[in-house]
Amino acid sequence: MADLGEAGVLSRIAPYCLAGMIGDDGAVLSGSQGSLIVTTDVLVENVHFSEQTTPAASVGWRAAAANLSDLAAMGCGDPLGLLVGLGMPGSTPMAWVEGLYVGMRDCCALFGTGIIGGDVCRAPVRVVSITALGQGGGWIQRQGSRVGDWIVVTGWHGGSRAGLELLWRGEPELAPELVRVHQYPRPRLDVVQKLVSLGMTGVIGGMDSSDGLADALVQISERSGVGILLEQLPVHPLLAQHFPDQAEAWTLFGGEDFELVLSLPPPQAIQVLEHVQGCQKIGEVVSGHGVIWQGSPLERRGAFQHF
Amino acid sequence: MADLGEAGVLSRIAPYCLAGMIGDDGAVLSGSQGSLIVTTDVLVENVHFSEQTTPAASVGWRAAAANLSDLAAMGCGDPLGLLVGLGMPGSTPMAWVEGLYVGMRDCCALFGTGIIGGDVCRAPVRVVSITALGQGGGWIQRQGSRVGDWIVVTGWHGGSRAGLELLWRGEPELAPELVRVHQYPRPRLDVVQKLVSLGMTGVIGGMDSSDGLADALVQISERSGVGILLEQLPVHPLLAQHFPDQAEAWTLFGGEDFELVLSLPPPQAIQVLEHVQGCQKIGEVVSGHGVIWQGSPLERRGAFQHF
Repeated sequence: MADLGEAGVLSRIAPYCLAGMIGDDGAVLSGSQGSLIVTTDVLVENVHFSEQTTPAASVGWRAAAANLSDLAAMGCGDPLGLLVGLGMPGSTPMAWVEGLYVGMRDCCALFGTGIIGGDVCRAPVRVVSITALGQGGGWIQRQGSRVGDWIVVTGWHGGSRAGLELLWRGEPELAPELVRVHQYPRPRLDVVQKLVSLGMTGVIGGMDSSDGLADALVQISERSGVGILLEQLPVHPLLAQHFPDQAEAWTLFGGEDFELVLSLPPPQAIQVLEHVQGCQKIGEVVSGHGVIWQGSPLERRGAFQHF
Repeated sequence: MADLGEAGVLSRIAPYCLAGMIGDDGAVLSGSQGSLIVTTDVLVENVHFSEQTTPAASVGWRAAAANLSDLAAMGCGDPLGLLVGLGMPGSTPMAWVEGLYVGMRDCCALFGTGIIGGDVCRAPVRVVSITALGQGGGWIQRQGSRVGDWIVVTGWHGGSRAGLELLWRGEPELAPELVRVHQYPRPRLDVVQKLVSLGMTGVIGGMDSSDGLADALVQISERSGVGILLEQLPVHPLLAQHFPDQAEAWTLFGGEDFELVLSLPPPQAIQVLEHVQGCQKIGEVVSGHGVIWQGSPLERRGAFQHF
């Protein structure tokens, strides 16, 4: 298992799954009832979160945010709710459980949704499994990038990694905003809703940056069969200020910023840059393959590897 | 946590969830698109399954069956697919993972559905989290039982518990059919489909018996505010033959048989008994409260307590 890595495991599992359903952030169910997006994530104590750096409300918030971000990654801005499976040892304090649910509820409430069901059971470690459902969407696709597109990001990257570093070092007061970005990230359903209101529901390229900006760029490039020329790397001002030596690496590989990385034809890209605050153009899509940054191919290294 | 029990934990969590969504086997989402049923379960190694008694394909089959049974429990006979979250140590053999997915796929295939998405990650123990989605349903409800109804079960109870016992004792050859019932249970979506074809989609009482027949009867009684007079307890012939001393207890409290326990007005009950093979009337719904068996109130004791 450890030898295969997450991608290897997924490729071995794919033959047992319905064709075409595996590989994106979520599954699209299309039927007479319109399209439905479903996505699931499993978070494990000491793998994905730790009591040291993460209060219960933040564990819950981040778990909900990750799943809502998976909906946004596919162009779904209308969540229907979350199902929460919770496994934990009998010794788990009830206050921790309540904190977890407060965090999930509060993150959901940002988007008018909530927890609609779930399961609790005993487990030797704390495990939180979340499934998010949403209606509409499916028009943002990893394989939807085309030569000539502009690459647009919806916000800063690296802030979450920097916030985690401050928590590890016991210096959260140095830059509370970075800590907030780490503990209470905002999934970008608001951007999706804005794009829908601008009339953009034709297929475009993109995904969220939960596993890092570099990972998202490489995945879009690979799945779309295009090259991406990275022109500039916007660095979070607080990252530049507090972590100048790590700023570039964390911007590329930090992960868990939950922004969107979009590939759009220039007229649509210009509309987005004009109407959605915080968006920046960072590159262009070219023929070829791979992601080029400062003349060299960009690796996914530093991206979270789950095994 | 251990002091509260599963029901206690759920009651503390309920305030953080959307009103009316918690307490049944799944959540019903009703909208312009018709109704959708979603349900989730978390299974943990050495809590819900063990490598000693359960080959990987059976772990997968049982996990899928439990979730499909939750759909059946709510009157949904039309599954849309399963999302599978899998956490496991790096040392997990790939053959185990593939066996798990074979089992899930094969159980789903019985009902023309399959795995549509998921997540894999590292965890200190094997954890399988499944979410099942289905369309239609919502008309079988725990609170739908009425005085005068007949209580009908769709098959034998206790067989799964007996099969497990044979595996523990290392004597599966004594009654392979009981072992099969334990390792490869059939969720009763077929019964739901049959009821729908008989035109029964008005609200009736009922749920599945995954936590035991006694548990289902007590829950229907409590949620509907009625009493249930248990008249007879059909005992699986192989249970009577191989485990005469435990037969009654396991029939009531064994669990994981995944049959349906239905509460129907007599005319509908008669139709079901005529048209659905294996169904039996076991009692009647009376005013009052609690489940009465041989003159005494029946407890849920023996039901699986997850903490």
